[in-house]
Amino acid sequence: MADIYKVILMRPHITINCAMTADGKLAGRSRKQIRISSEEDMDRVKKMRASSDAILVGVGTVIADDPHLTVKGLPPERNPLRVVLDSHGRTPIEAKVLNTRARTLIATTEKCQKLWPGAEIIRCGNEQVDLTVLMDFLGKIGIRTLMVEGGGETIFSFFQAGLVDQYKVFIGSQIVGGRNSPTPADGEGFPDKEAVQLTLIDTEILGEGVLLSYKVHE
Amino acid sequence: MADIYKVILMRPHITINCAMTADGKLAGRSRKQIRISSEEDMDRVKKMRASSDAILVGVGTVIADDPHLTVKGLPPERNPLRVVLDSHGRTPIEAKVLNTRARTLIATTEKCQKLWPGAEIIRCGNEQVDLTVLMDFLGKIGIRTLMVEGGGETIFSFFQAGLVDQYKVFIGSQIVGGRNSPTPADGEGFPDKEAVQLTLIDTEILGEGVLLSYKVHE
Repeated sequence: MADIYKVILMRPHITINCAMTADGKLAGRSRKQIRISSEEDMDRVKKMRASSDAILVGVGTVIADDPHLTVKGLPPERNPLRVVLDSHGRTPIEAKVLNTRARTLIATTEKCQKLWPGAEIIRCGNEQVDLTVLMDFLGKIGIRTLMVEGGGETIFSFFQAGLVDQYKVFIGSQIVGGRNSPTPADGEGFPDKEAVQLTLIDTEILGEGVLLSYKVHE
Repeated sequence: MADIYKVILMRPHITINCAMTADGKLAGRSRKQIRISSEEDMDRVKKMRASSDAILVGVGTVIADDPHLTVKGLPPERNPLRVVLDSHGRTPIEAKVLNTRARTLIATTEKCQKLWPGAEIIRCGNEQVDLTVLMDFLGKIGIRTLMVEGGGETIFSFFQAGLVDQYKVFIGSQIVGGRNSPTPADGEGFPDKEAVQLTLIDTEILGEGVLLSYKVHE
């Protein structure tokens, strides 16, 4: 009979969601945010955020774009948890992601002793945040769905840790070029024979571009 | 009456054709060719090559992949002209692109005095091949359709010169990552407000991936 009280602690279902240009870039050579998504895609992203328990970005995105990561019209208690991956404690005190419009969790390493007023903090991993420990923690606090929005270093680290369930990429209709422009998966890259294999499950025209949805092979 | 004999010299219609991973890469961190296209896409590329008057690649692709750039089953006189963009004369004498299975044109600069047995040579431009002069030349010798297959530096230079009519990109279902992996348009990149605008004209599932076809805005 005790079984019925057993709580199965599961990691959240993880979806990478991003937008890239038709030549595979998250932004141009300046690395500053540019408009890639169509209006229709922005509506979709808004809905997807509203139905996610948490949204995660890397600190590079916080520094470059200063996003608020909230859903317009939702009260703080109904907004998804904002998670910032910040191994070296670089999140600025004045970042919009620290405003009171939603809860915020900063994930950093055991080496980093920094505090951020208004943010909850988890310290896991030594040199880099241990993503598996972080995901276990999110599962424990009731996060069942996590949306990872970027940037390219963060997305690569999720693929590298084998944690991704779905990959959704909107492809905008422009070419920005640049051998140093950020892409959806940067990092050191995988050896040629260790590429992560996906299955294309849907394509959908959304305004001027197209959304591709993939699941990740087991 | 003389008008009816007037020959209008036109630049070829230029289509960029390439395959990238779902994270926007032409190859992985090793920069060596990997299989991105599906069987169905390879059939399409073969037909597209067979119906093109010329196929162009950059010398980086010749050195990295040593492609023959011919269509299996076609005699030399029916194969498209092979064009190698090679500003600094780096095409190896033993490159497959110099075999007798098709005509080959090496486009280099006026500074480069190198000769390649079996290849025709055009010298235009000072530091870099002048693409506009090269395209005018191709028009003069009767090339009406040109397929540009890569790599990323070459594709970027065509976009930069404003010469592209169509952009076709097959998106394979894999993630390779790598902040230094080659992408469909490398080069220095465009300033944020000068991105090349495209119109998506078709999406087609081809086996495990999807082909996106764009025309370039005037």
